[in-house]
Amino acid sequence: MSITLTQFQQLIRAIYGAKDQRRGLEGTFMWFMEEVGELAAALRNGSADERATEFADVLAWLVTLANGAGIDLEAAVHAKYGMGCPGCRQTPCTCNLAEKP
Amino acid sequence: MSITLTQFQQLIRAIYGAKDQRRGLEGTFMWFMEEVGELAAALRNGSADERATEFADVLAWLVTLANGAGIDLEAAVHAKYGMGCPGCRQTPCTCNLAEKP
Repeated sequence: MSITLTQFQQLIRAIYGAKDQRRGLEGTFMWFMEEVGELAAALRNGSADERATEFADVLAWLVTLANGAGIDLEAAVHAKYGMGCPGCRQTPCTCNLAEKP
Repeated sequence: MSITLTQFQQLIRAIYGAKDQRRGLEGTFMWFMEEVGELAAALRNGSADERATEFADVLAWLVTLANGAGIDLEAAVHAKYGMGCPGCRQTPCTCNLAEKP
């Protein structure tokens, strides 16, 4: 059941790629934000199952946005977090609490 | 350079787990939203590198939220999207455009 970021990005493209292209980036961003709102509600007041579903939806719409913007998420997170915290380059992060609480 | 969702969730926990526990879910949600705002700005008006960085940050904070909420993201997306579109169960999605444009 292991899935890489690239595989998930490909899966979402296979399911929704055609519709995503029609909708465009602005419309996709609004759907993404709707799901972010639902996640906030689930975090405040949802069951574990509801939270899991809303996390999956936010991630799917974030991946959809990345597909629309031509971004390879796996490469992006590797570049930013592959060497530990991008601020202090340590794992665990030793950045000042005022900067990165 | 392949990374699974579970590995990325573990990486973020290793870098930021201690700080995340101190900050709590509400504080983490505010950081997540700050990064969502930066992503919106990069999508409107950023370079490819800036967009990639902001996608990485939003994903990292989403994963941080999932860590705080005790959600296994890989299991969550598998449950929701592993069989294709959760609406029509097809790949590609054949849901009505009014429902899922």
